[in-house]
Amino acid sequence: MSEQDMLFDESGNLSQSAQINASKGSPSRWKILIVDDEEGVHTITKLALNRTQFAGKGLTFLSAYNVAQAKEILLSESDIAVVLLDVVMETEEAGLEIAEYIRDELDNHLIRIILRTGQPGTIPEKDIIEQYDINDYREKTELTKRKLHSTVYTALRSYRDMLALENHKLGLEKVIAATATILKQKSMESFAQGVLEQVSSLLYMKEETMLPEIEGGLAEKNIDDVHVLARVGDISAQALKASISQHDFNVVRDSDQALHYQDDNICHISNINGIETILNITGKHDFKDVDMHLIEMFCNNMAIALDNLRLNDSLRNTQKEIVYAICGLAESRSKETGNHVRRVAYYSRLMAEEIGLSPSQCEEIFYAAPLHDIGKISIPDYILNKPGKLNDEEWALMKEHTTVGENCLKGSHQPVMQAGAIIASQHHEYWNGHGYPRGLSGTDIHIYGRIVALADVFDALASKRCYKEPWGETEIVAYIHEQSGVKFDPQLVEIFQRRQADFFRILQEYNDSLSYLPTP
Amino acid sequence: MSEQDMLFDESGNLSQSAQINASKGSPSRWKILIVDDEEGVHTITKLALNRTQFAGKGLTFLSAYNVAQAKEILLSESDIAVVLLDVVMETEEAGLEIAEYIRDELDNHLIRIILRTGQPGTIPEKDIIEQYDINDYREKTELTKRKLHSTVYTALRSYRDMLALENHKLGLEKVIAATATILKQKSMESFAQGVLEQVSSLLYMKEETMLPEIEGGLAEKNIDDVHVLARVGDISAQALKASISQHDFNVVRDSDQALHYQDDNICHISNINGIETILNITGKHDFKDVDMHLIEMFCNNMAIALDNLRLNDSLRNTQKEIVYAICGLAESRSKETGNHVRRVAYYSRLMAEEIGLSPSQCEEIFYAAPLHDIGKISIPDYILNKPGKLNDEEWALMKEHTTVGENCLKGSHQPVMQAGAIIASQHHEYWNGHGYPRGLSGTDIHIYGRIVALADVFDALASKRCYKEPWGETEIVAYIHEQSGVKFDPQLVEIFQRRQADFFRILQEYNDSLSYLPTP
Repeated sequence: MSEQDMLFDESGNLSQSAQINASKGSPSRWKILIVDDEEGVHTITKLALNRTQFAGKGLTFLSAYNVAQAKEILLSESDIAVVLLDVVMETEEAGLEIAEYIRDELDNHLIRIILRTGQPGTIPEKDIIEQYDINDYREKTELTKRKLHSTVYTALRSYRDMLALENHKLGLEKVIAATATILKQKSMESFAQGVLEQVSSLLYMKEETMLPEIEGGLAEKNIDDVHVLARVGDISAQALKASISQHDFNVVRDSDQALHYQDDNICHISNINGIETILNITGKHDFKDVDMHLIEMFCNNMAIALDNLRLNDSLRNTQKEIVYAICGLAESRSKETGNHVRRVAYYSRLMAEEIGLSPSQCEEIFYAAPLHDIGKISIPDYILNKPGKLNDEEWALMKEHTTVGENCLKGSHQPVMQAGAIIASQHHEYWNGHGYPRGLSGTDIHIYGRIVALADVFDALASKRCYKEPWGETEIVAYIHEQSGVKFDPQLVEIFQRRQADFFRILQEYNDSLSYLPTP
Repeated sequence: MSEQDMLFDESGNLSQSAQINASKGSPSRWKILIVDDEEGVHTITKLALNRTQFAGKGLTFLSAYNVAQAKEILLSESDIAVVLLDVVMETEEAGLEIAEYIRDELDNHLIRIILRTGQPGTIPEKDIIEQYDINDYREKTELTKRKLHSTVYTALRSYRDMLALENHKLGLEKVIAATATILKQKSMESFAQGVLEQVSSLLYMKEETMLPEIEGGLAEKNIDDVHVLARVGDISAQALKASISQHDFNVVRDSDQALHYQDDNICHISNINGIETILNITGKHDFKDVDMHLIEMFCNNMAIALDNLRLNDSLRNTQKEIVYAICGLAESRSKETGNHVRRVAYYSRLMAEEIGLSPSQCEEIFYAAPLHDIGKISIPDYILNKPGKLNDEEWALMKEHTTVGENCLKGSHQPVMQAGAIIASQHHEYWNGHGYPRGLSGTDIHIYGRIVALADVFDALASKRCYKEPWGETEIVAYIHEQSGVKFDPQLVEIFQRRQADFFRILQEYNDSLSYLPTP
């Protein structure tokens, strides 16, 4: 061991060749904390390690001279890689107290602790090594400049490796949480938006700002039709659609991998049941530091979840369309129009939302309202289509459509059918108790029944029937106002008055010239 | 440095105090590989570390004397914790070659590499440290017994920490894969079974045998009803149900945590939308080594996925029940019976399966077949219920129920409704081309149409109608045989003959005395 290589003399004191040379801090440098009560140790350590570089990054030094200072720095700087820790300072075991503080109180198991002692033997080395979670134990005398470099260099390597594993672990936990987040979304819109948010946070998870510095979106491609599900950044739906339609994704399609990335662009394509889901994202920066394995795992889960959601949407649409189709056909027997049931669904949902029913109740009434007149299927033609007034016996039979509908639906445990049974049985009850079949009044009539009663009458007044021409807007509004507290729940009449324009918009939108309209 | 503490003299040669003391191997000990061409180094190293224990486990030593031996051992023993590696052996850089082999070829980044050199200076320490992914560099002269203990001890600590992070990472990846696996399941049965398999593999992922040494299951609890979804091990459904019903899970319910574990038992309860999902598993061994955080993350994802699946099931059931209810009501106009449509669905699915249609086609025909006569809603009562024979004009009107049904359904893009349109339009076509409305023949008739044609006729023959008594089994079978190649597809007649017993079982099971039957 040559003299000029020595940092410390045998007693652990600083040798005379030390010079001050402070390094400048930068977030892209490895942080080394020096804890020692001798100023000279700080100086010479910095001097010795001044040119040390690891993985292309230099070192930044932080200095503490006692336990309190060390704890303060450790608390505020969470990304210190290595601490060079003196044992004996204001107390015999000051350094050990700091080591314990790091592992037990700060719960920091990444930082590499190199214990340096000038007075070996105070506590036996074996005991220190075994009792404290430290990573190296050195006597100051053995730490030449060369040895200090080696020790810090290998410590940084361990730190980097553990940090990478730890970050990967956090990334995986984020993938699991991200999957849970999107799985909770029940609508396609919120699902797709959630996917972009989660991808953005996976792409930028190491950065402090969570501003989505990305542009792109999620789309599905069915045969030749591209449908944008959600987008992020400044790109317009039109531009995204064009980009996805024109972009040649065959590189991705032809490869075994679903995920393809290059510079600042990632593209994930999954094909389940013939529908391609395409995620295409461009970042403001290069994605070279991103763990693409995490993105891929997330995207794979996303594609499966999306397939489930599509099945769900398809089931919901099928249910709605079957009801519209059959109930429309049933209405046509009484020369009513096929779109009546559809419009009643929309008016009803509007009122349900406005009166503050829960989202699931709003959905329930939307799907169940079209079933209100289902019992008319069993009413004989001669009554249903009688041009004149019905006699008492005929009227009694006609009124039965409410209970026939109720009995047809009430056997099921499905919420939509139970709601349908209530609506079928109660949509001719009056607020004042003079309706049929049971003569219920006020809030004894289920809110679904009260809502559909108003919706049904509004649409009947506004439509042409075999026995009447459509009424004008003023007459309709006047009639409904007049029936507040008579036929209709006054609160619903208020809602009708407030949202009148929307009622007429629905009437217009699903007018009877259209036999079939795709629903939004 | 005292003489008796020395292992090596200044030139790196073995000191004379060395004694042989071989340790016995055991999987519950840390494996240390000693690579050195001097037998004495092996001996004295083992002696020096003989009593070293870390985390309650002793050491096992493996010895290699050259590069080839070292590589062989490293290849076959994947769980070596630390390698004490001599640099100069048969070549000047033999040790460095082994270090490279470990990191680059074996891709093993966990094993801690401690380089020991007897001839410092052959390659400068700084270069070795920076160019090779090693964890410590020591001259043999500085490695006293005490120092060797410290070095190996801290290396084991690093190894243990990295191994834990690595295992946790693998566990998280397994959770993600397990989530993907269960998300792919479309039926409740396969989903629930998948959950138990994945939990089992998460619980036992560190063990070599994958035999599910667990007993228990997954159940759902709705108000007071416990329904077992899947089970594993020797427990009967009855016993599991009893155990879950009687077991006091309030400890779990009252805590913030969904997962509760004690000794050999884990219990996870999630409550989404009022339905409790209970996973209860007992292991043959204690679960103390299991990372419960992984189980919890998986179970949380599972609960959300299960909720989606339930929604799906509910939508499917609602769709089916609405169709049964309304079509049943429609059939009742022609005095046919409400369960006719339900039975036709089951006969049709049976034939679809038997003739080899895909599962999704079998599902499609099952949901669409009940719509076959939907067009009859628009047929006037006097035709529908005419006791005598219809005249030509009436018959022409009657036949229109096929195209009315088709037009009512064909506007939708939903597969079930498209299938319904085909079935409505083609279920009165004959194999020989003499049916209506289009007079299609043979395979020009869609397979759905051919199937429902046979199902519809079979059920009509077997049921009482206003114009006829039910036929006997022999007569029905004879009639269908007779109509092979006339009205019916001969292949379907064969299937009918083969599965005749099942047709009559369905007839029995959904007989007309029941106005509403919960479907399996």
